[in-house]
Amino acid sequence: MAKEKLVTQITSMDEDFAQWYTDVVKKADLVDYSSVRGCVILRPYGYAIWELIQKQLDERFKETGHENVYMPMFIPESLLQKEKDHVEGFAPEVAWVTHGGSDKLTERLCVRPTSETLFCEHYANVVQSYRDLPKLYNQWCSVVRWEKTTRPFLRTLEFLWQEGHTAHASAEQAQEETLRMLDVYANFCSDVLAIPVIKGKKTEKEKFAGAMATYTIESLMHDGKALQTGTSHNFGDGFARAFSIQYTDKDNKLQYVHQTSWGMSTRLIGALIMVHSDDDGLVLPPKVAPIQLIIVPVNQKKEGVLEKAQQLKERLCSVCRTRLDDSDKSPGWKYSEYEMKGVPLRLEIGPRDIQNNQCVIVRRDTREKIVVNLDEIESEVKKLLDIMQNDLLEKATRHRDANTFTASNMKEFEEQLNKKQGFIKAMWCGSEECENIIKEKTSATARCIPFEQEHISDVCVCCSKPADKMLYWGKAY
Amino acid sequence: MAKEKLVTQITSMDEDFAQWYTDVVKKADLVDYSSVRGCVILRPYGYAIWELIQKQLDERFKETGHENVYMPMFIPESLLQKEKDHVEGFAPEVAWVTHGGSDKLTERLCVRPTSETLFCEHYANVVQSYRDLPKLYNQWCSVVRWEKTTRPFLRTLEFLWQEGHTAHASAEQAQEETLRMLDVYANFCSDVLAIPVIKGKKTEKEKFAGAMATYTIESLMHDGKALQTGTSHNFGDGFARAFSIQYTDKDNKLQYVHQTSWGMSTRLIGALIMVHSDDDGLVLPPKVAPIQLIIVPVNQKKEGVLEKAQQLKERLCSVCRTRLDDSDKSPGWKYSEYEMKGVPLRLEIGPRDIQNNQCVIVRRDTREKIVVNLDEIESEVKKLLDIMQNDLLEKATRHRDANTFTASNMKEFEEQLNKKQGFIKAMWCGSEECENIIKEKTSATARCIPFEQEHISDVCVCCSKPADKMLYWGKAY
Repeated sequence: MAKEKLVTQITSMDEDFAQWYTDVVKKADLVDYSSVRGCVILRPYGYAIWELIQKQLDERFKETGHENVYMPMFIPESLLQKEKDHVEGFAPEVAWVTHGGSDKLTERLCVRPTSETLFCEHYANVVQSYRDLPKLYNQWCSVVRWEKTTRPFLRTLEFLWQEGHTAHASAEQAQEETLRMLDVYANFCSDVLAIPVIKGKKTEKEKFAGAMATYTIESLMHDGKALQTGTSHNFGDGFARAFSIQYTDKDNKLQYVHQTSWGMSTRLIGALIMVHSDDDGLVLPPKVAPIQLIIVPVNQKKEGVLEKAQQLKERLCSVCRTRLDDSDKSPGWKYSEYEMKGVPLRLEIGPRDIQNNQCVIVRRDTREKIVVNLDEIESEVKKLLDIMQNDLLEKATRHRDANTFTASNMKEFEEQLNKKQGFIKAMWCGSEECENIIKEKTSATARCIPFEQEHISDVCVCCSKPADKMLYWGKAY
Repeated sequence: MAKEKLVTQITSMDEDFAQWYTDVVKKADLVDYSSVRGCVILRPYGYAIWELIQKQLDERFKETGHENVYMPMFIPESLLQKEKDHVEGFAPEVAWVTHGGSDKLTERLCVRPTSETLFCEHYANVVQSYRDLPKLYNQWCSVVRWEKTTRPFLRTLEFLWQEGHTAHASAEQAQEETLRMLDVYANFCSDVLAIPVIKGKKTEKEKFAGAMATYTIESLMHDGKALQTGTSHNFGDGFARAFSIQYTDKDNKLQYVHQTSWGMSTRLIGALIMVHSDDDGLVLPPKVAPIQLIIVPVNQKKEGVLEKAQQLKERLCSVCRTRLDDSDKSPGWKYSEYEMKGVPLRLEIGPRDIQNNQCVIVRRDTREKIVVNLDEIESEVKKLLDIMQNDLLEKATRHRDANTFTASNMKEFEEQLNKKQGFIKAMWCGSEECENIIKEKTSATARCIPFEQEHISDVCVCCSKPADKMLYWGKAY
């Protein structure tokens, strides 16, 4: 049996987590590097994961009444500058187009880092009466932020994402929408990505440029670092005032709209890697696995084996995303290859299995081998995919909980982070000064003020002044 | 009954075709203008049409073995310059990024006008052996071309499209792929968009910058102008040589790959407007209509009417994309509104209809009113949608054929175009000089050398030298 290509070992996670991550990203054929600094190519396998994320998120957006639109990718400099905090936050990290063909532009255009300003300009055009509200728009696109250091999926100059932008008649409705979409995100993460998240509010220091309040879902990676997985912002009427987005209410009075925005990106693929995967490569929850089951024939030159494998493929195609690898590579090579790619189930079928009217199914996450009667193959596969989806969420939740610690004072805080990284729950007085001191001492940042509060102590972990807020802290990607 | 908003009349097509087009685009809520010159906003209704196009095209790409990827939106100037003809064609019309944040870039980046160079660079990385071939990739994205004059959907600075890029082991396979995708495009246009197309080859003068041969599908608009609806290019090994994309064949010899690319864009929405629509607004083929059937209750305050309308909506939702308009606007207002938006079928239901267990269905294209027994509503609606889809294609084909003329000499050619615009079939000797003369005299260009040749005469329509090629000529968008 010819060995076309050896699946080379990847760096172990414990040895070098960053290198392990890069190895998985490359060896599972998710991305390739391009000659443009900080921009990656999403290869077919990586893009297929994004398509599955996109499809399932988009369904949830449409179920909650949102419509998709497409805005230009360029923002004139003067438009970007209309909201003061927003431009201060983004201007330092945008790409500027200065020439069209051989002509110098009279006004520079930035490549969108996010599209609040464009949506605001449009809303000012199309919103007149209370009957035009709410506007519940979403956009799938790529955005550009001129980052200094980059890593595939986690931080790249250009990345794919969705950005929701909504306008409402009242502050209450805007707040409801902000929290509704945070819930959509949180449920998507746990139900589809099998990633448990902490829902909460960002501190003033950490909120989005131009927002009144930013809400976030935070998740914990294998190495104990935190990842901001999605955010939902309530803008109040700040942008509406800057862009004059007004409507006449039922009493014929002019009012400003209240707005929100919310976004998730290909960063989610980075989270999938760092939450579920292991030293043999990617582990994918079935719901976002481009191939959910791979059939590997054993002794495939023996009469009847390939035929049976083909039959199984046809039967299983109606149950899940099934593929058959009947190439002349060795079964061992194939096992490694599909483990590297995180295919949830592997089905092995050889001459003896056929004799016994059975096959062997191996789970990617636990390596458990299950002998399955071929008469029950459809229902068994379906069941195993469901079980694996649930087990991954449970495992990730256990890991998250086992790596969430409490600290009552800075000594405990620092000692814990020196011992083992994770979430630190600690009380906070509310001052930005304490946030800064903690960051300086530990390089941990305030991840969020969680909705589910606990009482750790009566005083701030940093300054010992009275404190009634419990925060999640962590070193973040 | 309150009238919130009057559907204002649009300019008639015969009076001013360009203004009629702009009116339809705006009044059917397809686009809005932005403050970025030449870039439009795709509003929810316009974007929903694009999503339907995208979904049905993407299925056809996947059925023919293609995979989606995502390449960076930036191309370094040096990379763009690698293929001589290609850079000459595109450099004059690209947007240049010169600054990232406040730093001047050491090398300018252009915003992709098309991504051949990026795909080539990637293929040079990932193609080593004949076993890596073919590579059948597609990308959905937006591209930027710095056009001087723009019109929504037909020509904008930024537009959404798909670009297929493939690499093959042999010239034959690349040619097969080029023609296969042209067929996919042609079938998509007739089956989904109800637009008949002429398949053919572009002349040397009209081919894509860097291509060995360009194939095209050309369609005819209401006003007798031609629209290049999709193109498929065979690059031979030209790009492969420029980018060193080589593989080792079965005999262990180094060979260059042969490549193709093919694209269709939001221009298709412009074609839908100019082929099917009329003086009351948009007419959409059912397969790309975001709403396929609108239910308008008549006398909706009468007891039982809204209830019945709601029941019908629930029944019809499983048959097609159905919506019920139970707002307090008048039925007349609603009729105009959904006619403007090109909704294929309108279902009217009032107290008398309910008594008779029937409803009235009105076709958008023919205005035909059909009384339908409510017991048979599902099958009738399904049938009507199918009939309308077919009828639109037939009508467009009749229009195209009635506006396709022949010319044996320049006098006939010019007289015909002065009388009525359309396709002109005429013989051509093969010289670019004749193409230039014809363009100068008539402003018609060579649309394509059709696969289906006819013998109009023995000599070139322009120079009267012997000619064995029949061409389609026309004024083009």
